[in-house]
Amino acid sequence: MNFASDNWAGATPEVMAALARANDGAAPAYGNDALSERVTGLFSEVFERDVEVWFTATGTASNSLSLAGLSKPGGIVFCAKDAHIQSDESGATEFQSGGMKLIDVTSPLGKMEAGTLAAALDKHPDGGRSVPVALSLTNATEWGTTYAAAEVAELAAIARARGMAVHMDGARFGNAVAATGATPAELTWKSGVDFLSFGGTKNGCWAAEAIVVFTPGILPDLSQRRQRAGHTFSKARFVAAQFEAYLTAGNWLAWARHANTRAEQLRSGLRGNRPARLGWENGANEVFAVLGKDAIARARAAGATLYEWPADGVHVGEHEELVRLVTSWATSEGEVARFLEIVRG
Amino acid sequence: MNFASDNWAGATPEVMAALARANDGAAPAYGNDALSERVTGLFSEVFERDVEVWFTATGTASNSLSLAGLSKPGGIVFCAKDAHIQSDESGATEFQSGGMKLIDVTSPLGKMEAGTLAAALDKHPDGGRSVPVALSLTNATEWGTTYAAAEVAELAAIARARGMAVHMDGARFGNAVAATGATPAELTWKSGVDFLSFGGTKNGCWAAEAIVVFTPGILPDLSQRRQRAGHTFSKARFVAAQFEAYLTAGNWLAWARHANTRAEQLRSGLRGNRPARLGWENGANEVFAVLGKDAIARARAAGATLYEWPADGVHVGEHEELVRLVTSWATSEGEVARFLEIVRG
Amino acid sequence: MNFASDNWAGATPEVMAALARANDGAAPAYGNDALSERVTGLFSEVFERDVEVWFTATGTASNSLSLAGLSKPGGIVFCAKDAHIQSDESGATEFQSGGMKLIDVTSPLGKMEAGTLAAALDKHPDGGRSVPVALSLTNATEWGTTYAAAEVAELAAIARARGMAVHMDGARFGNAVAATGATPAELTWKSGVDFLSFGGTKNGCWAAEAIVVFTPGILPDLSQRRQRAGHTFSKARFVAAQFEAYLTAGNWLAWARHANTRAEQLRSGLRGNRPARLGWENGANEVFAVLGKDAIARARAAGATLYEWPADGVHVGEHEELVRLVTSWATSEGEVARFLEIVRG
Amino acid sequence: MNFASDNWAGATPEVMAALARANDGAAPAYGNDALSERVTGLFSEVFERDVEVWFTATGTASNSLSLAGLSKPGGIVFCAKDAHIQSDESGATEFQSGGMKLIDVTSPLGKMEAGTLAAALDKHPDGGRSVPVALSLTNATEWGTTYAAAEVAELAAIARARGMAVHMDGARFGNAVAATGATPAELTWKSGVDFLSFGGTKNGCWAAEAIVVFTPGILPDLSQRRQRAGHTFSKARFVAAQFEAYLTAGNWLAWARHANTRAEQLRSGLRGNRPARLGWENGANEVFAVLGKDAIARARAAGATLYEWPADGVHVGEHEELVRLVTSWATSEGEVARFLEIVRG
Repeated sequence: MNFASDNWAGATPEVMAALARANDGAAPAYGNDALSERVTGLFSEVFERDVEVWFTATGTASNSLSLAGLSKPGGIVFCAKDAHIQSDESGATEFQSGGMKLIDVTSPLGKMEAGTLAAALDKHPDGGRSVPVALSLTNATEWGTTYAAAEVAELAAIARARGMAVHMDGARFGNAVAATGATPAELTWKSGVDFLSFGGTKNGCWAAEAIVVFTPGILPDLSQRRQRAGHTFSKARFVAAQFEAYLTAGNWLAWARHANTRAEQLRSGLRGNRPARLGWENGANEVFAVLGKDAIARARAAGATLYEWPADGVHVGEHEELVRLVTSWATSEGEVARFLEIVRG
Repeated sequence: MNFASDNWAGATPEVMAALARANDGAAPAYGNDALSERVTGLFSEVFERDVEVWFTATGTASNSLSLAGLSKPGGIVFCAKDAHIQSDESGATEFQSGGMKLIDVTSPLGKMEAGTLAAALDKHPDGGRSVPVALSLTNATEWGTTYAAAEVAELAAIARARGMAVHMDGARFGNAVAATGATPAELTWKSGVDFLSFGGTKNGCWAAEAIVVFTPGILPDLSQRRQRAGHTFSKARFVAAQFEAYLTAGNWLAWARHANTRAEQLRSGLRGNRPARLGWENGANEVFAVLGKDAIARARAAGATLYEWPADGVHVGEHEELVRLVTSWATSEGEVARFLEIVRG
Repeated sequence: MNFASDNWAGATPEVMAALARANDGAAPAYGNDALSERVTGLFSEVFERDVEVWFTATGTASNSLSLAGLSKPGGIVFCAKDAHIQSDESGATEFQSGGMKLIDVTSPLGKMEAGTLAAALDKHPDGGRSVPVALSLTNATEWGTTYAAAEVAELAAIARARGMAVHMDGARFGNAVAATGATPAELTWKSGVDFLSFGGTKNGCWAAEAIVVFTPGILPDLSQRRQRAGHTFSKARFVAAQFEAYLTAGNWLAWARHANTRAEQLRSGLRGNRPARLGWENGANEVFAVLGKDAIARARAAGATLYEWPADGVHVGEHEELVRLVTSWATSEGEVARFLEIVRG
Repeated sequence: MNFASDNWAGATPEVMAALARANDGAAPAYGNDALSERVTGLFSEVFERDVEVWFTATGTASNSLSLAGLSKPGGIVFCAKDAHIQSDESGATEFQSGGMKLIDVTSPLGKMEAGTLAAALDKHPDGGRSVPVALSLTNATEWGTTYAAAEVAELAAIARARGMAVHMDGARFGNAVAATGATPAELTWKSGVDFLSFGGTKNGCWAAEAIVVFTPGILPDLSQRRQRAGHTFSKARFVAAQFEAYLTAGNWLAWARHANTRAEQLRSGLRGNRPARLGWENGANEVFAVLGKDAIARARAAGATLYEWPADGVHVGEHEELVRLVTSWATSEGEVARFLEIVRG
């Protein structure tokens, strides 16, 4: 009953098998091998256009290295208030970019709204001491909600009208695609996204993260930038192999759908189960629920892992807590059922 | 016949087996799992003292993040002229440290000498605009040579007398231990090394690199620094598993000895084989040889991979090239024999 | 009728005279001259304790270089929402510190409140990915308001309880001292301030800014840090001379009192003069007023300079604007009277 | 008898008078005043073309901010071995550029040679991990020597052929112009220099330094970059006034010629005066001489200031020292005569 995080799960059997297959003989280092090239082709298929693909070690690396490629003195990146780049990366983007500033945009349930973004941009007119350079959207968000393609497009258009680039943090991009039913292309470049932090790690890989660039030339020095940051794996085929398994035959979406389905199983079980209840509704693989402290204690005693979460604006009684429950490719229907039963008391 | 680099080899069967074993169920993320803790114990055994261990994605990350922990305005790191941190990392240490300067010390055959180091330090007296903060030694060096423990100790003492810390770049540390016969402890903290970039990738792992800290407290903020650099793997057990295989039962030294032995087989075969000859003598797993251009062409036609190398100070005739030949855990006796035969013509 | 900014004024006759006096013969460079030493003594007298004094070119330099001395990976500086370091310095502190993050604290009329600060700190518990390192308070604030010594002490105590350092941006420190009646010592180190950006430029100097350090050793590497930032004037006596004139015989406070008095003349003239009215009450040398657009036009036609200002929360009618009026050592009683008359219509 | 440095001198009477003139009434801040605009026109006249002019506080600021405008990951700046940017600025360029690397080029008597530069560039071929971005030449050099226009052109052409920009550190540009007889235009943009650190401080100003940009658009973000670095003076007219005095009626060249002449008086007096002798010949306002220790002691006892200097390659006897003697606009013929007499013994 791991609901602590999707990054507590291991790798899928398909990923392990691909790693074993890739481990055959010598291959050129630094991504110049045949498998890495083949995987770039798979990315282009998935996104229905030619893309550039740059492996990195982590999502934090993908976010900060790509945004840093836009760095300007006085540069500002706008992001949702609880964006990972703002709250969980120890200032990675500020650091990699040599001091860009992140500005929070109030984002109910993790989703930025057009009017709020426009108002935030208005405070930084052209020609001033600060220079808006990028909008960063997270899909699926840290609140388990998702942006539909039209929502991405609306926000991206506002940013682009100001000459800004648009980044998407897709640590859980598979879950967003699975939840929205949109195509990867629709959620990204067709809606104005210039580059994407594409995450495989939370969805069945060991460590498979990549920067996917849709707009040619927008990040011109990624090769040296990545090298300088220590993110150029010499035996890059071990990442390529994971992505090969991930992107082949729609595996990534199947795994994401599985995780989302288990989350819906959780939500469904909690909806009608007062006093337990959902903190809010969402569609990806994170569930936020208000549980009794006794129920949480029982679940933990039975071996469940889960985290308390800050209850921003959600009513939580004295004997309750808001908790986050994350499902993954490895979560089984039985686990969820057992957890719901324990919580029910 | 891969002699291009030891990072062209894949992972050993032991590493693959350990990865498969580690892939069992959920485990806490970010290195808080039991296996990561066990592996720290293995490192402490290998080095005969309690050590701190910080996994990173690459050797460049280990070098630059650890040295950056000493950063001061005006700070200087002294290194050998051809050190990887100076020549191959796109300014990683300058970047991660927020602008420290690397100063080359002339180092014949890749090895720094006490007098030269002392003279270089004399140019930066205390109280000046530059502040010597660290000495970085590479063992085994980029020239395939190695420092004996006493040599490390002599250089480290000079640095420490100036209040500097001592770093060792051990991307090929296993090969240095195997070549010198010294213990890991003797080559490092017993000789005054404060922290080590310990590499497993070139010697049979996929991506297993770590900063090993011997001097408690010398790098106080590595946790946030690594996070900020995007080098904190969430599924850290996939690195831990590799190191488990690596450090168990002396595997790492067995693999390094194997690579060194294959290199010695190469050297031995080239020594008596005019016109082919060694560029210089050394003991680790890199061989530098002057070969005829026709011999090189024959080897490549037969599938061998190898690199031409800058012939700093070595006599190379008109129809010859200096080449670098690197062996690894995966190099077989037969491969070497075949290569020698081809070269012989 | 310059009400655009106090930095539109020139230098006082006393400053010009001191510059002329200092321009006599050769003197050691980089602040090693006798005058620079004497001026440090003047600072120590003003603050009633031994202080370190570091000249810089601008207030932005003082703020960012001093805060950068506390830099840690994941480090956070807390400041008021409209603090100069957050809104007007093009990311100077983020840059000089190698990527620290500034976090806004909602601060009505520019003043931070204890409860809001405490709540903001609670979101960054010890041991997390972010590390609160400093609180930065501005006195006088960007809203023309001032912190009393007890208010500084209360906020500083909250920060110090978390191990944070306390910085004060004193670009208009003279105006704050003059407005509050507190001593320089009471407003700073006696209330828990560790270091101060002490500004002379806005109050009668050409370019006289300094970092004044109260807590010995808290910013250990300022000498090299300032040099590296290009802020170590070679002919430092030209700054020292300005400060000599400034700090001698209480000149600085006389000039600040003059500016504050002229501001009070403005406020007093606007209070009873509907439809013109004050945006809010304050005591330093900035006045915020709601004026009719026609009145503003008349004033400008008569040669007055002044800026429209964002009207955060102030009611402004359709034919009105919120404007900022800044007075300085050079503002005359007659100028203010004339302006009031013009506005009155 | 100040021979310690030209930055020990004060400001010329003309500079003081211009400051007094400029101190009249209010003027827009941040360089938007009429005087600053007029001064830009003077620069354009001096350089016989439209130029951009950015004031900064120091030569270190000019060097590092301008070079940082070219920053790329893996970027390298090539400079002479003893260049100020390499030896005296505490890593300013590395810092401001976010980690660029400076690479020394061996430069006899401070002057880079075409062959050596070409060889240094060859080690960094296109497409590698390091990216040559700029050549930085100093004129006059730290050895008191000067580059003729043709020499600048030859070196610049080599750099430009590699797509690099060309920077000139002109902390003593006036002395170089005076010594070579070339025009300012010939020594800079007509010879391929893209931007210049133009120094007035060492040649009669208090603090008057500027980045002069010849190639439009090459440093696109200097406005925010300078602001972020704390180098945008609010009362910019105090710098403008100094430059007005400096550039009017050829004052700057008259002052530089004066200093050079005094240096030649020194050289001439030392040439025929064994055992005293010149370390090497040069033409600008720095003289390097081998003096007896007793002569040095006598000079100091009589109030002379001068520095011992590292005697790179110059023969210095047991009872001798190599010293540096710097003359300035304020050095009188009598001072030099007296010094020579004392040294003569």
